[in-house]
Amino acid sequence: MPESLKLGLAGLGTVGAGVLRLIEAHADKIAARTGRKLEVVAVSARNRAKKRDAYIDAYRWVDDPVALAKDPEIDVFVELMGGEEGIPKEAVEAALKAGKHVVTANKALLAHHGVALSKLAEENGVALNFEAAVAGGIPVVKVMRESLQGNEIRRVYGILNGTCNYILTLMQEEGATFDDALKDAQAKGYAEADPTFDIGGFDTAHKLALLTSLAFGVEIAFDQIYVEGIQRIAAADIEAADGLGYRLKLLGVAEATEHGIEQRVHPAMVAKHTPIAETFGAQNCVLVEGDFVEDVMLSGQGAGAGPTASAVMSDIVEIARGHIFAPFATKASELKPYPRAEMGGHAGSYYLRLTVHDQTGVIAGIATRMAEQNISLDSIVQHRPRTDIPGVDDGDEPTGPVDVVMITHETTESAIQKALAAIEGDGHVVAKPQMIRIESL
Amino acid sequence: MPESLKLGLAGLGTVGAGVLRLIEAHADKIAARTGRKLEVVAVSARNRAKKRDAYIDAYRWVDDPVALAKDPEIDVFVELMGGEEGIPKEAVEAALKAGKHVVTANKALLAHHGVALSKLAEENGVALNFEAAVAGGIPVVKVMRESLQGNEIRRVYGILNGTCNYILTLMQEEGATFDDALKDAQAKGYAEADPTFDIGGFDTAHKLALLTSLAFGVEIAFDQIYVEGIQRIAAADIEAADGLGYRLKLLGVAEATEHGIEQRVHPAMVAKHTPIAETFGAQNCVLVEGDFVEDVMLSGQGAGAGPTASAVMSDIVEIARGHIFAPFATKASELKPYPRAEMGGHAGSYYLRLTVHDQTGVIAGIATRMAEQNISLDSIVQHRPRTDIPGVDDGDEPTGPVDVVMITHETTESAIQKALAAIEGDGHVVAKPQMIRIESL
Repeated sequence: MPESLKLGLAGLGTVGAGVLRLIEAHADKIAARTGRKLEVVAVSARNRAKKRDAYIDAYRWVDDPVALAKDPEIDVFVELMGGEEGIPKEAVEAALKAGKHVVTANKALLAHHGVALSKLAEENGVALNFEAAVAGGIPVVKVMRESLQGNEIRRVYGILNGTCNYILTLMQEEGATFDDALKDAQAKGYAEADPTFDIGGFDTAHKLALLTSLAFGVEIAFDQIYVEGIQRIAAADIEAADGLGYRLKLLGVAEATEHGIEQRVHPAMVAKHTPIAETFGAQNCVLVEGDFVEDVMLSGQGAGAGPTASAVMSDIVEIARGHIFAPFATKASELKPYPRAEMGGHAGSYYLRLTVHDQTGVIAGIATRMAEQNISLDSIVQHRPRTDIPGVDDGDEPTGPVDVVMITHETTESAIQKALAAIEGDGHVVAKPQMIRIESL
Repeated sequence: MPESLKLGLAGLGTVGAGVLRLIEAHADKIAARTGRKLEVVAVSARNRAKKRDAYIDAYRWVDDPVALAKDPEIDVFVELMGGEEGIPKEAVEAALKAGKHVVTANKALLAHHGVALSKLAEENGVALNFEAAVAGGIPVVKVMRESLQGNEIRRVYGILNGTCNYILTLMQEEGATFDDALKDAQAKGYAEADPTFDIGGFDTAHKLALLTSLAFGVEIAFDQIYVEGIQRIAAADIEAADGLGYRLKLLGVAEATEHGIEQRVHPAMVAKHTPIAETFGAQNCVLVEGDFVEDVMLSGQGAGAGPTASAVMSDIVEIARGHIFAPFATKASELKPYPRAEMGGHAGSYYLRLTVHDQTGVIAGIATRMAEQNISLDSIVQHRPRTDIPGVDDGDEPTGPVDVVMITHETTESAIQKALAAIEGDGHVVAKPQMIRIESL
């Protein structure tokens, strides 16, 4: 019988407790499959006495995660604390330097320091595995690092944040406003008291940064991602999208273009009756397009104790089998610099919703501004008068402000921005125009 | 620089040619990622002179695939001939016995001889990889063999045959009859001149047999799969399903039940507005439910040169990296005997469509027969009179045969079969009743 694989686990929140439960439930099966018995030898967390969904008295307690990371008794350091700087970073570095394999769910840490940590892992001949850092239980890291190696990737994109998808689903299904849907998500524990990190798109951007490096063999470039959250999505947009055959999702997209790689996080419209459009609630999904495989989609639970523990275990099993990969598929020293494609060059169709005074000539004026930028329209719909624009007194006038919704043919981001600036300058709009990109599938 | 990985490729049809093109396109990238250069040293096929989508003159030609399989110069035998007996089987056996790794897309061979071949691979310390045998470009074998090892699997199911899904999609979208949709699929090259293998469900059953073994650690039991094809699906069923909120798909399902493992291939209704329901045309999808991961879905192209070549390459890359697995995740000698759950015990809801004379008392008679089997109904809808029942003269009578569509609450297969037999015995139905299982998602 070969030696057991000895684990040190730092971070005993929801996910850490889930990993302990999974090991308890399936250690025997995993030993039969991999030839190595998993053994948790020590654990660490901020507060030993905290009530948890796992029994931890069986394990040696270590106060300092950094000490645990280099503990002579462990083979694998499982980092489930989270956070991009400070103790988690120190601990992961210490583990790698001490020749320990590292399994982590820490997307923020990797989005900021992934390349440096990969170099450290490679220098020390150990694994740095992070399946749980992207899209919870969905095995997208393994699929990209292994299954799709025979492909040149064109685009990787998806719904990577369950909080936003929950909010958008609620707005769609119940006609809720953004604020009410957010409150509901907070009450149900899907959103934090300060929800900015999720609804502002930053969590999605962390995950996207990792997928981009895996897909294109480039350095991680988190701070070069265009990030726009879902805060400005109105019930009127969800409703208009529905009428036009679309669903609204917060997407993370990394795409190879002739100008470089676009990395963008923003609300987007996707065609109804497609698997991505039918990904609801807290589910995540990731789509990958390659030159041979064409397209592959993976979906599942993007968070939660069980799914995330399943992903952590996938990483541990890989180590138990003795399979060590370059963390981002390409050796860290050979990752190419990230070639950024500016958002101005983004090509696509756009949804525009302009709230305007219902007066003669307004539509003509708008159409002229679009034509000046060579933007042609696929459709234009004038909606019923609005009576809910804050600060706009529409009193009893029959001709209060109305919503004009347009879908453009393919154009560029810079053309749209120029046209919208000109339209705003003309004074026809009574509120900031809404612009949502349409993602072609 | 380590040695190149030397490949011998038997079978140069669509997939074989695709693999050669992929190697030409991406050999350098793969060498950089795996440390080994792929080199095709020899090829074999039935007819050397045949026109192909790949240039083969650069490779040594071997007439006999079995000779190629044990050629001293090759490390990996890539079997893309297909067929469950004869030369492909002999060649794969010869390769394994000669200590060559085998990569194959041959689901029929594995469904019939997978356990014996796995034993042979394990005895010789080589890989027997078959990602391309199940669901084309979708990386489901890797995901089950590696990513989901921390789970007890409850159910694995999906749309595993593109031909059937294409036919059902056409029936749904264009109201085509089954015969017309089949003719269209044949004209487009999606279906063979003799389509029985696809539309009868046998191709799906081959793939399901492999997934079942992977999921549950049991021996492959192809002959014990319940198989029902799509030949009896009528336009009326597609239409009724739509009205009731369902889509019709041919599913392969393997499910752990209290009576053992159910393995079944049959048309099934799945709820609309779910990713599986929105899997259209020649696309495939696979869903896996585990105790920790909850549910994971993978979808993509289930066939075709590019996607299948991508899957073959995933298997080759694994070998290039030196990662060798038990083919079915569990050592072949430790796979448990397959514990069959009989179809009679299958629990679920059912769709029934009975074509009956529009006479007083018929519905009451049917309802009585259902009640006798303790089957309760979720809904019952009487459709407009039918005028298209062959052999039934409905002339100008206002009261010709009508379709009665029922959805049952959960019951068992044997209860449904008994109720239907009794209803047929009563002489109320003018055609064989239609029964379609509803798969709960």
